[in-house]
Amino acid sequence: MAQAPTATSPEKLQTLLSKRGKDLPGPRVGDPRKSAELISFYAGFPDPASLPAREVADATVRAMEKDGSWALQYGNSTGYQGLVDVLLAKLKRDQGIDARRENVLITAGGSQALALVLDAFVDWDDTIITEAPTWMGAVRAFKNVGAQPVSIPVDEQGTDVEALERELVRLQGEGIRPKLIYVISNFQNPSGISTTRERRERIAALAQEYGTLVLEDDAYYDLRYGGEFISPIYTLDDSGSTMYLGTFSKVMGAGMRLGWLIAPPEIIQKLAVLKIDGGTNVFGSHVAAEWVPDHLIAHVERLKGIYRHRRDLMLEALERHMPEGTTWTKPDGGFFIWVTFPDGVDTTRMLPQARERGVEFLPGSACYMNGEGGNALRLSFSFASDDQIDPGIRVIGEIAKGELLESGTP
Amino acid sequence: MAQAPTATSPEKLQTLLSKRGKDLPGPRVGDPRKSAELISFYAGFPDPASLPAREVADATVRAMEKDGSWALQYGNSTGYQGLVDVLLAKLKRDQGIDARRENVLITAGGSQALALVLDAFVDWDDTIITEAPTWMGAVRAFKNVGAQPVSIPVDEQGTDVEALERELVRLQGEGIRPKLIYVISNFQNPSGISTTRERRERIAALAQEYGTLVLEDDAYYDLRYGGEFISPIYTLDDSGSTMYLGTFSKVMGAGMRLGWLIAPPEIIQKLAVLKIDGGTNVFGSHVAAEWVPDHLIAHVERLKGIYRHRRDLMLEALERHMPEGTTWTKPDGGFFIWVTFPDGVDTTRMLPQARERGVEFLPGSACYMNGEGGNALRLSFSFASDDQIDPGIRVIGEIAKGELLESGTP
Repeated sequence: MAQAPTATSPEKLQTLLSKRGKDLPGPRVGDPRKSAELISFYAGFPDPASLPAREVADATVRAMEKDGSWALQYGNSTGYQGLVDVLLAKLKRDQGIDARRENVLITAGGSQALALVLDAFVDWDDTIITEAPTWMGAVRAFKNVGAQPVSIPVDEQGTDVEALERELVRLQGEGIRPKLIYVISNFQNPSGISTTRERRERIAALAQEYGTLVLEDDAYYDLRYGGEFISPIYTLDDSGSTMYLGTFSKVMGAGMRLGWLIAPPEIIQKLAVLKIDGGTNVFGSHVAAEWVPDHLIAHVERLKGIYRHRRDLMLEALERHMPEGTTWTKPDGGFFIWVTFPDGVDTTRMLPQARERGVEFLPGSACYMNGEGGNALRLSFSFASDDQIDPGIRVIGEIAKGELLESGTP
Repeated sequence: MAQAPTATSPEKLQTLLSKRGKDLPGPRVGDPRKSAELISFYAGFPDPASLPAREVADATVRAMEKDGSWALQYGNSTGYQGLVDVLLAKLKRDQGIDARRENVLITAGGSQALALVLDAFVDWDDTIITEAPTWMGAVRAFKNVGAQPVSIPVDEQGTDVEALERELVRLQGEGIRPKLIYVISNFQNPSGISTTRERRERIAALAQEYGTLVLEDDAYYDLRYGGEFISPIYTLDDSGSTMYLGTFSKVMGAGMRLGWLIAPPEIIQKLAVLKIDGGTNVFGSHVAAEWVPDHLIAHVERLKGIYRHRRDLMLEALERHMPEGTTWTKPDGGFFIWVTFPDGVDTTRMLPQARERGVEFLPGSACYMNGEGGNALRLSFSFASDDQIDPGIRVIGEIAKGELLESGTP
């Protein structure tokens, strides 16, 4: 009667799977515990040593004393009101976003917000517009729902709005209305580049003009180490065309799995009906609502010190160790540096060599819908410790030099 | 620059929405804080007074001391291994399920498991088989993904397996392979009825014979107040056709949002790739992994005492207050009693009258895909306090009697 793991025949499974379920890539590699065994520049994992475990334990004790039986109960579909109010105050103070409760959906990290937006707007084969490169989680999510991507390059000023306009004109000519434009406005994942204010205004105007929506992913807004804050597209758009996605993952703890979407109430209502989940992490929401008002500002200041230093260490190490002809971005914030090697270097082939030597990074092709980016890679400076950065970058430089020698491009 | 809530034009929104996003019902009503203002028999919310707030606070302090920086970090896509192991031990001890790590997916409540299974197997207009009545969350989830439901009645022995076989034969004749059979084997939501062991064996055999899968929802397994435990379908199926869904919502706290799916590894791998969410509630998972081994058994015993008593109070109150010709189920466990009134009673029309008098229940039609169940309602005995039960049932009885008088069926 007791049951060992059973197997369904591959033929039966293939017959039953949906379009979403078929032809999926292998299991996702993102597991911080595995990354911790290496010098890992692979993922946007927060610095482990800075995670506020003690403060969160204290906040939990307070939250449970105050309101424990509600924290352990089902929630409503838009989110715990106590956390919504804390978030609204933070967004007004830091982002200049003046939203109301009906504009907010609390989600299981930014990724659930993205998934819900795709469910609500994208049918199989629908067209979406995305920056290229972009966040590999978005690449996966777009593929999962069968979206047809139109890629917009990112240059040193961010989203290339001229290319965006060209593509919108072209699509309009073909009778295709793209469902949304996905952009990461600050310290873009993976390029590290921030889109200028002028371009942000243009993105909002183009979305309005061409009857589509902007999904602005701003996971890194608070983590700025240089330059001036730039207003989110959401605040530059008076047409209700922008949805603003954020998260507590980078500034409190990714393990809380708490993110949000700010959008017009009609959109929030739609998403809340699709979101049949008994409420987003009600327990964690009560804890965050207790932690954020007391600790967020000071914690972000501490994080900025840690990450600014790591960014600088990594930029210095790149200067020291990269082969000639290599370029990289110099981000004003966030977690990522984008490295481009001379032609002939294949970063996907470099990865197993690096892992063998105890180092990992993200090959650039994971950040493109179409497999471009073969000679690029993304480095995250958030997770590896200060003293791992130089040795890790040295290994990558040595492997790249080896690849260049082999390809005859010294 | 600061932004009031903006609105997208309804026309634009309608043009952009996907099939999933169009024609959704209004926002879901399930909000326990609103229900708490009434005598609420509406939802399967756990008893508020029994939620172990203090124990969970203590478990959090211990979990954060032990492993705080991992609890606040991203997780992997299948779940925190510490919780997986605790769950495997519990399933073996209580359910007789002998699974391994590769059979487990930790999810944000049972509802995320259901949503992932639908994403992986159901394309728009695909056929699924479901009990009728069934859980209203499943009704919503099936509608959201455009599933074509085939309804199987539930009688006093559970799923009507003869009807199931008839429908499978009919579908086969039409060249339609149903993607899955959704059943709630214990104390079915909403009927309260448990499917017999013989019928469970038949369901597993039929799924195998007709090349489809069973999704067995067993959210209430532990909460049995009478009768003998019956083995889950999962343990009666040696063909790998069954996926087993459960949750900590009813036995620890719904606010933890922790559920699971047990299934063949090939299916778990597919779902893990679709599940782009940075890991399920990593913080809550660490807390649950700390709480469950110390407290689950004693807590379930305490809950069984509370809920058994409430069930008995409600059954007695029904005897006292229901109009002649009314029938109701007598569940051996779970949270629900299903009440069927004589023809002429419309429970959807009764609900606003009941709310006006401070009482709420779930109209039966919410539990059917096709709006049947108009003269039935679901009562939950989990959320209202002992002393609210008799007065609440009396109000419902009075309203039903009024309806019968009006319809001329005294």
